[in-house]
Amino acid sequence: MITISRYVLSVLVENYSGVLSKIAGLFSRRGYNINSLSVGETENPKISRMTITVDCDIHILEQIVKQLNKLINVIKVIELKPENSVYRELVLVKLKVNFMQRASINETVNIFRGKIIDISNKTVTIEITGDTEKLSAFINLIEPYGIIELVRTGFTGLERGDNKIK
Amino acid sequence: MITISRYVLSVLVENYSGVLSKIAGLFSRRGYNINSLSVGETENPKISRMTITVDCDIHILEQIVKQLNKLINVIKVIELKPENSVYRELVLVKLKVNFMQRASINETVNIFRGKIIDISNKTVTIEITGDTEKLSAFINLIEPYGIIELVRTGFTGLERGDNKIK
Repeated sequence: MITISRYVLSVLVENYSGVLSKIAGLFSRRGYNINSLSVGETENPKISRMTITVDCDIHILEQIVKQLNKLINVIKVIELKPENSVYRELVLVKLKVNFMQRASINETVNIFRGKIIDISNKTVTIEITGDTEKLSAFINLIEPYGIIELVRTGFTGLERGDNKIK
Repeated sequence: MITISRYVLSVLVENYSGVLSKIAGLFSRRGYNINSLSVGETENPKISRMTITVDCDIHILEQIVKQLNKLINVIKVIELKPENSVYRELVLVKLKVNFMQRASINETVNIFRGKIIDISNKTVTIEITGDTEKLSAFINLIEPYGIIELVRTGFTGLERGDNKIK
């Protein structure tokens, strides 16, 4: 039986212009769909860390990890498992909000520990971080106001405790 | 004279497995180095939004925008200019912290409106969001404790006010 689940991979790579292209090519040639991807420098500017979420079967995941490990600029690949990792994502959302609605939006944002980062006469832009459940709950709540734009960074994460990818 | 600056591009793309590979390939073939990249679904699950930061000359930037616009799965490319945009990035950092140091770390995290999201006997993991200056200031302050791991999502952003990419 094939069970599709969402997996989160954390990949340490050399900070070199072709590496993203190689990794993206590996996924696209095999038709694996990347659900989200984020990449930025680590504490060492020569090394970047990529977080990839992918919806697939466990056997496909094993293939992906094996293929990633074969790439020359890939230093290390680990799966961030839900039971021993923290995941976070950042979402910015611009809402259509009239003057009368501002107080209730403010309250919702505070409950979710979000921040209002821009206001115009007709809109507010909100920053919110969290895991999948929190972000979905928040987006469902504010959707009725009218979402003008929404952008998300894709998930990033670390293992809990004093573990270190190396 | 060639002046290298950091530019932020926001790219709406069809949510299709090959599009990331095409875009990464475009940058890598031309040797343009992507500084950070984040991609996730928008309010419409068929459309993803990518935020790319790139260090280059204004003429190179124009070339990049032109080339991106030629790609068939790219819906729209805009430059997010600092004067009319908000940018944010999410950073997770795991610090080596002993029991004695916890209070002072806590204070620093609160001042920067960060959140402690995991604690072990020897470590704390902090979530913090902000623009480049805020994040650099925070990382400089906490670096002396000893960074075990650091991961960043890469920048994402929206235009201020009621503008909408379309």
